[in-house]
Amino acid sequence: MTSPISDAGPSGTSISQLGEFGLIRHLTANIRLHQPTSLTAAGDDAAVIGNDGKQTLVSVDLLVEGVHFDLTYTPLKHLGYKAVAVNISDIAAMNGTAHQIVVGIALSSRFPLEAVSELYEGMLLACNKYKVDLVGGDTTSSTSGLLISITVIGTAKAEEICYRSGARPGELLCVSGDLGAAYMGLLLLEREKAAFKANPDLQPDLEGFDYVLERQLKPEPRTDILEILRQADVKPTAMIDISDGLASEILHLCKASGTGCRIYEDKIPFDPVTLNTADSFNMLPAIAALNGGEDYELLFTIGQSDFEKIRNIRGISIIGHMTDNPGYADMVTPDNQIIPLTAQGWDALMRG
Amino acid sequence: MTSPISDAGPSGTSISQLGEFGLIRHLTANIRLHQPTSLTAAGDDAAVIGNDGKQTLVSVDLLVEGVHFDLTYTPLKHLGYKAVAVNISDIAAMNGTAHQIVVGIALSSRFPLEAVSELYEGMLLACNKYKVDLVGGDTTSSTSGLLISITVIGTAKAEEICYRSGARPGELLCVSGDLGAAYMGLLLLEREKAAFKANPDLQPDLEGFDYVLERQLKPEPRTDILEILRQADVKPTAMIDISDGLASEILHLCKASGTGCRIYEDKIPFDPVTLNTADSFNMLPAIAALNGGEDYELLFTIGQSDFEKIRNIRGISIIGHMTDNPGYADMVTPDNQIIPLTAQGWDALMRG
Repeated sequence: MTSPISDAGPSGTSISQLGEFGLIRHLTANIRLHQPTSLTAAGDDAAVIGNDGKQTLVSVDLLVEGVHFDLTYTPLKHLGYKAVAVNISDIAAMNGTAHQIVVGIALSSRFPLEAVSELYEGMLLACNKYKVDLVGGDTTSSTSGLLISITVIGTAKAEEICYRSGARPGELLCVSGDLGAAYMGLLLLEREKAAFKANPDLQPDLEGFDYVLERQLKPEPRTDILEILRQADVKPTAMIDISDGLASEILHLCKASGTGCRIYEDKIPFDPVTLNTADSFNMLPAIAALNGGEDYELLFTIGQSDFEKIRNIRGISIIGHMTDNPGYADMVTPDNQIIPLTAQGWDALMRG
Repeated sequence: MTSPISDAGPSGTSISQLGEFGLIRHLTANIRLHQPTSLTAAGDDAAVIGNDGKQTLVSVDLLVEGVHFDLTYTPLKHLGYKAVAVNISDIAAMNGTAHQIVVGIALSSRFPLEAVSELYEGMLLACNKYKVDLVGGDTTSSTSGLLISITVIGTAKAEEICYRSGARPGELLCVSGDLGAAYMGLLLLEREKAAFKANPDLQPDLEGFDYVLERQLKPEPRTDILEILRQADVKPTAMIDISDGLASEILHLCKASGTGCRIYEDKIPFDPVTLNTADSFNMLPAIAALNGGEDYELLFTIGQSDFEKIRNIRGISIIGHMTDNPGYADMVTPDNQIIPLTAQGWDALMRG
């Protein structure tokens, strides 16, 4: 539980010595391009991206220190990886493929070059894994802390794009993977941070929690699920990625599609480690799934006629269905209570 | 000389009341789309941009409060306008046309809704003027101050794109408009801020300085120059926009092109108001041009054979030529001194 920033210490290389252009040269030296459409990388006023007859998808995400991440327990390399991964997830949520990113970084003078290099290393690791090219950026100073802005550009054939607005009453609501793990990872890290503050000699007690920690620190965009759906010849009617929590994302789908939704608590998929961790925090796992966020799984609707095609696919769970009650979503508990879903406030669930 | 933030005062609408999605709804309500290629605006995980057989250009810029702007004297509406304008300028510098932007905003709780609305109003004003569509964004909180990240996406035909690397020895170096004004505007605003701090009853003394103030607060990308060059059948061999100051941009061109450059001090174009303001600060106008930055004029090279085509075009000045001395640039003064250009440090020019 040490900060990668303070550790860099006095031996770190000052960025102000390098200057902005020196920093850019340093950071871009290791960039390799993967996409035939990436015609240039950093070095001009704008990157050049060739077109290939598909539609372009673009999305931007800001990550702010103290709001979206805590460098006390987030290694910068993981942070860089996550920053890219969550952007790729935005393109995946449209059923598209990410090809390029441009990166803006604002950082205060407390960050030595080594810290920024680590951040970039993580970004490039995700870029390499998902065959995404880092084609441009802007690096500047900030008056406090670190801010990362990533814009991702992808493509999809017009007829393959999945919007949030395509769900219809009666369609099935599906989710990939399992939920709640990232939030349980966050709670664990926050608990260890508090324990370390109280007693710096304490060793962190994170054994056996690898899965939920990795889900928090190093999420993966579910591009593999898109491929599985394509192979099963299923095109989701609506799709979104789970960044803010299941309840919030369901309400987004309902609002955009003009439908309602009903889900079943006992259909929400969990990993055993998530269940154990939730138990140790005396928390209902459903709360972590509904309200926790950062799982970056895909939430999507399919027509009932596609039920047979996906019912046996490992890693996809049907958790409910869309209704004709616009904007209203609820959850049926195992004991047949019906609980309205709201984007915030889980008092109703704080039972047992 | 009042702050638009503190003025919003206790009557301002708190953004935390609205929530992120309420804020996004509020901010995007007035967005109109201009481009046939903008197939969707905000509302999904990514914006969809149709392709039309051209190459895509993309660029990102971060603007950080306390680093790039001072809200003491920068109206938020102007700031929004400028943030978009400088991004359009990046695409113009590639000889391309900007079509879409995505906007990331991080802001602390001291900003009421009215402040963010003003910022957006300025952004949309620039969008409307330059027929650029705001197609997506991310709004989040920051722990201190305001940060704006804008990614601009444009297109150009492959054969029309101007890179920094295309200049050859012997070619002519040209600049659009006039230089140094934005920097003189900045010095004036800083002087008035200091005077106001010393004596808050003092009225700002900015009469007669409209031109340099507007150049600082509300710069325009020179898309008109691109059109003029097209009509004159001139394609620049290399191009860059002047954001960091003439000297720095010349060195970028030299480095990317593997050439040197010589310019002539008496060929640098100035507006009379810039000359007067520089005089009142007892500063050589050339220093403002070389080192000041933020003029957002276009700096470009053309083949000697194009000389006749542009020599009589109003608003384009030939200020020097490229040499075969890689990476080395200098300036000839009216009294025939030769001064090496460097990206920083103007001691050599602090004469007379």
